[in-house]
Amino acid sequence: MLRIPYDDLYAALERACEHLGLRGERGQRCARLFAETTRDGVYTHGLNRFPRFAATVANGCTDVSAVPSRADSDTAGTNPLAIERWNGNLGVGNLNAYAAMERSIGLARQFGLGAVAMANTNHWMRGGSYGWQAAEAGCFAMCWTNTLANLPPWGASTPALGNNPLVIAAPRANGAHVVLDMAMSQFSYGTLTSYAARGALLPVPGGFEQTGELTRDPVAIEASRRALPVGYWKGSGLSLLLDLFAAMLSGGHAVNEIPIDSLRESGLSQFFLAVDPANLAARAEMERIADGAVAAVRAATPIVPGQPARYPGEQTLHLREENLRLGVPVESGVWHSLLALKFEQWI
Amino acid sequence: MLRIPYDDLYAALERACEHLGLRGERGQRCARLFAETTRDGVYTHGLNRFPRFAATVANGCTDVSAVPSRADSDTAGTNPLAIERWNGNLGVGNLNAYAAMERSIGLARQFGLGAVAMANTNHWMRGGSYGWQAAEAGCFAMCWTNTLANLPPWGASTPALGNNPLVIAAPRANGAHVVLDMAMSQFSYGTLTSYAARGALLPVPGGFEQTGELTRDPVAIEASRRALPVGYWKGSGLSLLLDLFAAMLSGGHAVNEIPIDSLRESGLSQFFLAVDPANLAARAEMERIADGAVAAVRAATPIVPGQPARYPGEQTLHLREENLRLGVPVESGVWHSLLALKFEQWI
Repeated sequence: MLRIPYDDLYAALERACEHLGLRGERGQRCARLFAETTRDGVYTHGLNRFPRFAATVANGCTDVSAVPSRADSDTAGTNPLAIERWNGNLGVGNLNAYAAMERSIGLARQFGLGAVAMANTNHWMRGGSYGWQAAEAGCFAMCWTNTLANLPPWGASTPALGNNPLVIAAPRANGAHVVLDMAMSQFSYGTLTSYAARGALLPVPGGFEQTGELTRDPVAIEASRRALPVGYWKGSGLSLLLDLFAAMLSGGHAVNEIPIDSLRESGLSQFFLAVDPANLAARAEMERIADGAVAAVRAATPIVPGQPARYPGEQTLHLREENLRLGVPVESGVWHSLLALKFEQWI
Repeated sequence: MLRIPYDDLYAALERACEHLGLRGERGQRCARLFAETTRDGVYTHGLNRFPRFAATVANGCTDVSAVPSRADSDTAGTNPLAIERWNGNLGVGNLNAYAAMERSIGLARQFGLGAVAMANTNHWMRGGSYGWQAAEAGCFAMCWTNTLANLPPWGASTPALGNNPLVIAAPRANGAHVVLDMAMSQFSYGTLTSYAARGALLPVPGGFEQTGELTRDPVAIEASRRALPVGYWKGSGLSLLLDLFAAMLSGGHAVNEIPIDSLRESGLSQFFLAVDPANLAARAEMERIADGAVAAVRAATPIVPGQPARYPGEQTLHLREENLRLGVPVESGVWHSLLALKFEQWI
């Protein structure tokens, strides 16, 4: 493992984006979203995810020249609504999602809250990016995406739900935003693979044996393809509702209409909501409430003495600081492949 | 157990509400919300919950004469926003929540989406009521409430989070709305008590032994007071975000400011969001998407042959039909206490 200065990682990713046809501001933004994801410690969805992104450009699932377009009837703005329908036109997933959240924030500046339902988009990579984006703009946000079917509904043994990541963000004036980024499966298949490679058991049950017993064995879950929804029947239901909300309001594909092939997962539906508290709440009052709630979590008796419970996003800030100070950790082979623009070697 | 005609249950509850000081339309609505909850099979939060509601009226936590009032600065409507802040004035929880969702729907009719952040309200009883309310009006909805601290954050052993129920609803033209109503704990303490009384183990782990081991033993969890958040660290994070969203935007209490006494749990913060798809989506298109998604869940290979996976709300419709046909099941003692207006005997 190497530690690379953040600016070098960003520059290499910008060059890689340009190689894929993403130039100027769009290439810079796409590279920044990938680089910041690795900088913030979400290693699965930053640099390490870039080759799969490049593969979807190569196979035609992602159109680097496409930009989102308004899809509802009120493009003339004659009957302005605080929610809009957009078509992602199968463009770059992280750029589309960034644009959708920007538009939601713009609507929230005008109406107090705003939303975008987006159809025909692509994998947004790290969902938390768009929560941080809103929080940095002083807004609350919720957003989610559907995915290919990778999760059995509670009571069934074959996948029919997506793990549909959900992001919720609450802004704080001190920059210590509270940002949750959770998929509806207890563990991603990437995490299962990582535990399996180490020969380790999962910390809690993460799916089923072929025989139907709950298990902490990642190898057994990879074999059964029966990952566990968070909270069993609860995450199963939540996954379906997020799918319906995004697909029905965007007019896009629900999970059952998305190709079941991780390199051809395309045409996703997403929903973005932002709330601008500026005209609603006094900033000092919001700070007092957030400080109190976070302090109460930290004050709960820790299971491991000296290690208080954390709030979502807290670890992100620690890793960001560390990675900016020491350099961003990247695998040596991945780094050299990136510099050589040979992405396909490390999918 | 008796089976009582729905109309008789409603009439008895209306009389009980009147006895508490809720007259006319307000009494009728409060009674209807309680009666429909039992009719729909959510027995813990309907009639059986009425005595605890009556106790909060008696002890002054619930003010039956209070109605919600606008709390933000734009009460003159000079700068109309699609989100409003309301003060519940410690009124009747289910009436306040119903009013907040009605107002959110009204804002959604105007802006496409609308929201209400409400402070100083009381327990909303069955959260799903407000999801059904929105869906019956043709709207999508999300709403949630905070609660007293009853859930340890992940990594801690003492309660600092609420189980903060979350409701999400997607409307369908055929009335088979998809409505999720989930608390952030895997099981409520009421459910633990019910399993303990039967000497049964929980179907999945629901909390911790005093020693810190996960367990399916409801008695052990009642002893440790360490219920499990849905999805472990994920539900723990989700609970905090829901609390921050509701409390910061309403200017109300976060979980850490709510009295830890189930009969004095008061001054809650809630958030209501509605989306009116009328100006955004074609109804036939939405139906096609919903039908496909629900059919895919039902088509997944069932674990028990012949018992396909269900969608959230499906069982509600079955129980509603059965209870309207056969009568609503009520415990004999509870029913006679209700008729005698002797609520305190069955808290």
